[in-house]
Amino acid sequence: MTESELPVVDFHPYRWGDPSKPGELPAAAAGALGALGVKAPEHGPAGLAEIPLPQVRLPEQAQAALEAVVGAQHVTSEHDARVAHTRGWSTPDLLKLRAGDASDAPDAVVFPGSHDEVVAVLEVCSGLRVAVVPYSGGTSVVGGLTPAREWFAGVIALDMRRLDGLLAVDDISRTATLQAGVRGPRAEELLHEHGLTLGHFPQSYEGASIGGYAAARSAGQSSAGFGRFDEMVVGLVLATPRGTVTLGSAPMSAAGPDLRQLILGSEGTLGVITSVTVRVRPVPKERVYEGWRFASFEAGAAGLRALAQEGPLPTVVRLSDEAETAVNLADPSEALGGGPGGCLVITGYEGTSTEVAARRLSAGDVLANAGGEALGTAPGEKWRKGRYRGPYLRDPLLDAGVLVETLETVTFWSNLDALRSSVTTALTEALSKQGTPPLVLCHISHIYETGASLYFTVVCAQAEDPLDQWRQAKTAANEAIRAAGAAISHHHGVGTDHRDTYSEEIGPLAAEMLHAVKRTVDPAGILNPGVLIPPVSGS
Amino acid sequence: MTESELPVVDFHPYRWGDPSKPGELPAAAAGALGALGVKAPEHGPAGLAEIPLPQVRLPEQAQAALEAVVGAQHVTSEHDARVAHTRGWSTPDLLKLRAGDASDAPDAVVFPGSHDEVVAVLEVCSGLRVAVVPYSGGTSVVGGLTPAREWFAGVIALDMRRLDGLLAVDDISRTATLQAGVRGPRAEELLHEHGLTLGHFPQSYEGASIGGYAAARSAGQSSAGFGRFDEMVVGLVLATPRGTVTLGSAPMSAAGPDLRQLILGSEGTLGVITSVTVRVRPVPKERVYEGWRFASFEAGAAGLRALAQEGPLPTVVRLSDEAETAVNLADPSEALGGGPGGCLVITGYEGTSTEVAARRLSAGDVLANAGGEALGTAPGEKWRKGRYRGPYLRDPLLDAGVLVETLETVTFWSNLDALRSSVTTALTEALSKQGTPPLVLCHISHIYETGASLYFTVVCAQAEDPLDQWRQAKTAANEAIRAAGAAISHHHGVGTDHRDTYSEEIGPLAAEMLHAVKRTVDPAGILNPGVLIPPVSGS
Repeated sequence: MTESELPVVDFHPYRWGDPSKPGELPAAAAGALGALGVKAPEHGPAGLAEIPLPQVRLPEQAQAALEAVVGAQHVTSEHDARVAHTRGWSTPDLLKLRAGDASDAPDAVVFPGSHDEVVAVLEVCSGLRVAVVPYSGGTSVVGGLTPAREWFAGVIALDMRRLDGLLAVDDISRTATLQAGVRGPRAEELLHEHGLTLGHFPQSYEGASIGGYAAARSAGQSSAGFGRFDEMVVGLVLATPRGTVTLGSAPMSAAGPDLRQLILGSEGTLGVITSVTVRVRPVPKERVYEGWRFASFEAGAAGLRALAQEGPLPTVVRLSDEAETAVNLADPSEALGGGPGGCLVITGYEGTSTEVAARRLSAGDVLANAGGEALGTAPGEKWRKGRYRGPYLRDPLLDAGVLVETLETVTFWSNLDALRSSVTTALTEALSKQGTPPLVLCHISHIYETGASLYFTVVCAQAEDPLDQWRQAKTAANEAIRAAGAAISHHHGVGTDHRDTYSEEIGPLAAEMLHAVKRTVDPAGILNPGVLIPPVSGS
Repeated sequence: MTESELPVVDFHPYRWGDPSKPGELPAAAAGALGALGVKAPEHGPAGLAEIPLPQVRLPEQAQAALEAVVGAQHVTSEHDARVAHTRGWSTPDLLKLRAGDASDAPDAVVFPGSHDEVVAVLEVCSGLRVAVVPYSGGTSVVGGLTPAREWFAGVIALDMRRLDGLLAVDDISRTATLQAGVRGPRAEELLHEHGLTLGHFPQSYEGASIGGYAAARSAGQSSAGFGRFDEMVVGLVLATPRGTVTLGSAPMSAAGPDLRQLILGSEGTLGVITSVTVRVRPVPKERVYEGWRFASFEAGAAGLRALAQEGPLPTVVRLSDEAETAVNLADPSEALGGGPGGCLVITGYEGTSTEVAARRLSAGDVLANAGGEALGTAPGEKWRKGRYRGPYLRDPLLDAGVLVETLETVTFWSNLDALRSSVTTALTEALSKQGTPPLVLCHISHIYETGASLYFTVVCAQAEDPLDQWRQAKTAANEAIRAAGAAISHHHGVGTDHRDTYSEEIGPLAAEMLHAVKRTVDPAGILNPGVLIPPVSGS
């Protein structure tokens, strides 16, 4: 294809989010970073143009067949497109690309224009043993876009951005059918024309898309009010090398296993989700966000548990531990230190004004009874305005020589304190023994009647080999999560980073079930090989 | 085993529910039945003792091996036990047994005492090619207990009643772990000791058990408030011929597909669920049930949709059409005719008294705004008292020469009227052309934001061959449901009765996925063969 026809590469390959809104470290951060022993690196990150790429090894026959399916202008092996489709946005992913390592780059990027083209691409790739990495927002932070290359004649990234339509709206049933390539903000734009919203706002909202939400079981910041994405999906269409699967005859049924829930979370290994039908709701007329302070994380968690078990649930609810609270409540100029003590809870209410007022009042009673101190709307508004900004700080932190990464898990309420403690200890010990004692922040951002998620942010000085440094910390955290009997991910997914722990979590027989399903729809094993489950040589 | 050690056969093999509370037709029913052309049959049903059984063909080796696993006193081929474990409680099931046809009887009934014994039994049966029908409450109404016998050396019913314990209660997380053989009332009894309730009350409550709830995706009468059973399950333990699968590390997670939802609804074909961990709630302090009248089914459905989409949801909500309303509102002495017009809605509220009052008030506003007329608590109380009694009427109706059966489906709100109309027409035409014009009643008993269930009751005179008569009606209804794009079952399950329609619903590739999973855990194909998916000769 000619360069002018290349669809826009709209995100920087190794910087988070919208390139027009880069993150900036507050001047006061320098002191905090100094205390962690952070030293500015000698070299800046590699320039994109100078990143070397492995030679394209896609068989000529594949190139021609793919062009025949999607049109020559929708297949490219151009340098910038290959770099842009290399891996996702985890810190290790960024570190590798910053160091000029694009060894995981696809041989080509293919842009299908319809469900049928996706099926045809998969048939071609299955026949020629070309691995396919479904690429939607490209926002994976768990190595979900890093395929195993062995056994394959090449690797393509299947970029879904041309499947960008709102296919149907059912006002009566309150459902909408969206194609996989629609990004978060565009989905809201399309639905707003009908007075509707998805209500799904993960932190990757600006980049992530519908297909990724579904394939990786995304959970957004409004999950308490709008539910997780897997709870919103009532139907889906899946393209596989052996044809199409269409699921979802009804909201819920007793007609066999819920096979939608087998595809949701399959991370591109069982097929490519090309569209989903989701439950939608009217755009809320009113939104109020406010803050509460609790004396401790345990007290705050008890307050959240009361909301989850007795109700009413806010639309947004989150609790930061003391360390994260210090960052959140502090003046931006003290963003990495200081601030008043205690633990901050943010609650948000969205709906009609009567409903918001009533729910806010009752939830406020529950939080006050649990020992919460009302802080008014200022902290809530501050959170709302900055809700997508957190990850933007990572790039300048990495530039400054900081290692920063996040991980998350979920467990039952009775296990929450033990889990938080053991993961914090595991991270702290694994990094301290490398001479880089970390700051570990933690929050709860998703609550259920029976349990809650825990989200950790880790900040420390970069060691000489930051990839190996983080690998040790991540391994320790994975082991702590497994030992606590918790799930290895609440909303980031499995990818390659959690694959081994996930296999332990479900056990060998359940893993065999997944392999059996995969062999059925993907006999050549080309679909995102090595993600979710160990790669196997195809039949 | 000796007869005295046989666990109680506590339900009559071809009569619904508690034998101490048989149903009785009101005297006034005679007229209504006469109008349908019902004639009393010449012969009464077969006496249990005189029902002939096929010769036991269980290999001697199997008998010995099974006795070695569970103890000789827990294996029986005694006549009454075999008859009692023959099929379930659908009208065709009852008609066959009433006619003395026990050709589907198991060769033996096995009563395992632990999860490990279940695994060992399955290993024995897999090795000797003996089919296994997991038997919990025995209340299937879709042929879920009628295995395909070809290719097998024998058939055993695996009666789970000895797995009857509450294994764990987690007051903090509000979860409880119950064994599969615990029946509905016993589960409530065990949980009440902890001040807790499951809140799951299907019409089969008196007989059905935890394992069946899970395996067949049960939905109870309080589903609006407490959710479906598949929504309550946070963890489960599955015994298979190849070992154990334990699922549920957290309430919800992004760690791969939700494999719990692959096992729920698998109806004993992928393994035997031996225990589940379920979300529980405090026993409600207050319960209020009331009635509303709407001018039409469509108006009532719009009111229910408003509750489902705007809230608040009652704990119980149901809408009867004009015909069912006539039966419900009538004096019991006019149970099959007369009564005032319009459509009856029942709403029930359970919780703390403040919460019940607030929810009842708001929901009442919604229903009044939708055109509902408040009828007070009398119709609600009448419904509550009779909530498990409906099916008891079937036995005296069958005795009197009536054909009576129910079926149900679920779809999105925008499709509800069309579905109701086409299923009603299909049933009416299929039975009228056989000379037995039916009365078709319909109600909504489960609502979701995006759709609702439809439950049909069909009453007509028995033709000469009532099994074939109903088969024709059922086939027509299945086709109408399929043509409308709805799900073949909302809460009864697939069994053998819906198997073919279910295969069409999910399509061939999804059906292959299920077969692949089954081959993995059940290579000999012994688990409830022919239920859910077509039987296959094992490897």
